[in-house]
Amino acid sequence: MRAVDIIARKRDGMELASEEISFFIRGYTEGIVTDYQAAAWLMAVYLKGMSERETVDLTLAMAHSGDVLDLSDALPMVVDKHSSGGVGDKTSLIVLPLVAACGVPVAKMSGRGLGFSGGTIDKLESISGYRVQLSEDEFRQQARKIGIVLTSQSANLAPADGKLYALRDVTATVPSLPLIASSIMSKKIAAGAHAIVLDVKVGLGAFMQTIDEAKALARMMVGIGNRVGRRTVALLSDMNQPLGNAVGNALEVIEAVELLHNRGPQDLREHCLAVAGYMLWLARGAKEGAVEGYVKEAAEKLRNGAAYDKFCTMIKAQGGDVRMINDTSLLPKAQMVETLTASRNGYVRQLNALHVGMASVELGAGRSRKDDAIDHAVGVIVHKKVGDTIMEGEPTFTLHANNRGRLEAAKRHLQNTIVYSDQAPLPLPVFYDVILE
Amino acid sequence: MRAVDIIARKRDGMELASEEISFFIRGYTEGIVTDYQAAAWLMAVYLKGMSERETVDLTLAMAHSGDVLDLSDALPMVVDKHSSGGVGDKTSLIVLPLVAACGVPVAKMSGRGLGFSGGTIDKLESISGYRVQLSEDEFRQQARKIGIVLTSQSANLAPADGKLYALRDVTATVPSLPLIASSIMSKKIAAGAHAIVLDVKVGLGAFMQTIDEAKALARMMVGIGNRVGRRTVALLSDMNQPLGNAVGNALEVIEAVELLHNRGPQDLREHCLAVAGYMLWLARGAKEGAVEGYVKEAAEKLRNGAAYDKFCTMIKAQGGDVRMINDTSLLPKAQMVETLTASRNGYVRQLNALHVGMASVELGAGRSRKDDAIDHAVGVIVHKKVGDTIMEGEPTFTLHANNRGRLEAAKRHLQNTIVYSDQAPLPLPVFYDVILE
Repeated sequence: MRAVDIIARKRDGMELASEEISFFIRGYTEGIVTDYQAAAWLMAVYLKGMSERETVDLTLAMAHSGDVLDLSDALPMVVDKHSSGGVGDKTSLIVLPLVAACGVPVAKMSGRGLGFSGGTIDKLESISGYRVQLSEDEFRQQARKIGIVLTSQSANLAPADGKLYALRDVTATVPSLPLIASSIMSKKIAAGAHAIVLDVKVGLGAFMQTIDEAKALARMMVGIGNRVGRRTVALLSDMNQPLGNAVGNALEVIEAVELLHNRGPQDLREHCLAVAGYMLWLARGAKEGAVEGYVKEAAEKLRNGAAYDKFCTMIKAQGGDVRMINDTSLLPKAQMVETLTASRNGYVRQLNALHVGMASVELGAGRSRKDDAIDHAVGVIVHKKVGDTIMEGEPTFTLHANNRGRLEAAKRHLQNTIVYSDQAPLPLPVFYDVILE
Repeated sequence: MRAVDIIARKRDGMELASEEISFFIRGYTEGIVTDYQAAAWLMAVYLKGMSERETVDLTLAMAHSGDVLDLSDALPMVVDKHSSGGVGDKTSLIVLPLVAACGVPVAKMSGRGLGFSGGTIDKLESISGYRVQLSEDEFRQQARKIGIVLTSQSANLAPADGKLYALRDVTATVPSLPLIASSIMSKKIAAGAHAIVLDVKVGLGAFMQTIDEAKALARMMVGIGNRVGRRTVALLSDMNQPLGNAVGNALEVIEAVELLHNRGPQDLREHCLAVAGYMLWLARGAKEGAVEGYVKEAAEKLRNGAAYDKFCTMIKAQGGDVRMINDTSLLPKAQMVETLTASRNGYVRQLNALHVGMASVELGAGRSRKDDAIDHAVGVIVHKKVGDTIMEGEPTFTLHANNRGRLEAAKRHLQNTIVYSDQAPLPLPVFYDVILE
């Protein structure tokens, strides 16, 4: 078998055999297949597509390009979640303690943010001392002992995906459904997931701009999951406006803690309870009609403080300063706080999540490039959401900044972020759809 | 401007601006645009194509990526020729002396063979002492002094084309018309050509398998030539069967010398006279209806020995042992000579040039890889051509070999090379078409 022949076959629109895909991915992982051959192949895949069978094979080949975690000694069943990335998405911080509080252990590896899209690990690092890197043994031990662990991704999981992902970024081959789907699913499989809830964002602040696109990606991932024996559910959730009100690392931790105290924004609450509900549903056998009950069970854990306690237990176990959770005023604080106000009366018809994400990156909360340092204190608080009434002079955004120039630049990003209307618009739904197969 | 955006635009089927193409090619030449970005871009070009304007821009960008020869101090007008490559194609060895003998100076850089397709430089190296590498000054001096020079390509001509060509080879992006056309034309332009005769081979032993493909490539190259102010003509010539009877380096030199002595195969003679006729036609102003006269003029130079003398003058000037030309039995000789014979009576309906080329590579006359050494003595003599009658036991091929195993392997390549028929088939034409615009 030769890499160049495999590239040629994909270029000509042929379906690659399983052996060809595994040969190519293994060769690329080992450095025998070169970056330029992989780049040509990625462009051919981008333009010619992949069958479901090929996408499954690619997923498995990438998943098995490094270590595949087997957590069965620590957890009876590993339920994982994945978000496709968005603005203000602090879901994992809330959902993991919720599910663990319901008695279903969770052991998750999360990522860092890039561009307008935030990352769970960056948020957790707002908390002094929190160790995002555990050894595999520590990871396993903590999962067994307290039923919850949340770390950054170990370097040895799906290394082929890591290499290909970096290559796609610089060769204009990112927005391809089979490449996105196999990338996400390969990491989940390598991380040992038996069941997966996929949170596919759709809208102005998401990679998927339309419901059709998001649905196609969701169906593809659920298809892969089911074909490789992982129960998979995808929720299509709104990312036209930010999720919740806080955008920025420490600001989002504060909002997550609020929610764990059974307060906080309604959309975020509904979102987290649904994700938790589906994770519980999958963990407990996916019986028809049972999801509603699990959502109620999770809501009770917010009300009685069990989820909050679980969160604190995890922070403590991973070396984090739990005083910062008990008193969030101890979390990193920005030096400058400035609130913008509405220029007119009316309704909020649109609140562009992408603009808010860009403003947040501008302030230093996110990265333009992979190796940028970030500032945990800065970010944006959103005071109004789509459908809300608004009066001239009422607060719209509060910016938390540590640099005057960046603050001014961030304000420019927010200039046309709110679109007003005179008639009351429909509020945005939290979810558009649930994909079970 | 960013390389990744240029890749994305081509991926999406957009027409690239002139500045984008020159930015990309300049960046690639300088190593700022990486091999993997070039590979992704090549695949996008392969699958999405290029407009005529883009192809012209690519040609010029590659031509100007290194030195552009200006031979106007040595030659009043530089007429060049290019063959798209085939089996038994020793045309340059004959045509250059022919044209020079007619008083039109020629200064040409040729290539080496790869795969089934031979190269002029390899053939010339059969002659002891012949220097294929001259300094630019020597090249210029010899052109001025004796009106003929034939060397290998200097490393500094169209380096972007050299890099891209090597990359295409390993990324399955070779057979793309705009990439082939711009590659060929960029080298001709960098070599200082004012007028170009393109010999586009078509058939079983050519890169272009059908007349339609060959015509499309020919039209594209003639279009580029005319748009950049180089008078260009393309001849579509047959490569279903080998050109002439000899395949292999020294064997082809012998046949070329035979032809220069006004002997040798009729198809090769007709081919060379037409190519020479069009080169003379272009050099002398491309007046309508004048080609026939130039063909006759060239034929006279075969008859009266002037072309042969010019060839000897060139060999001597470049340090070659001219005794090997005067007595070709002094050229490298193979140790084993074995003749195959016909298994039945009938007519030759097909004589697969590709098989003969592969047999020749097997014997060591050509290269499987770029850095393979070659054996100048070995090769195949073809005794029958399409349309010939044949009797059982008559010679079909004579193999010249230096290794028993390779000889046997080459014989296997020739097993089904001749297709017989009972009815007389039409002989193959030498040319299918002439493309002037």
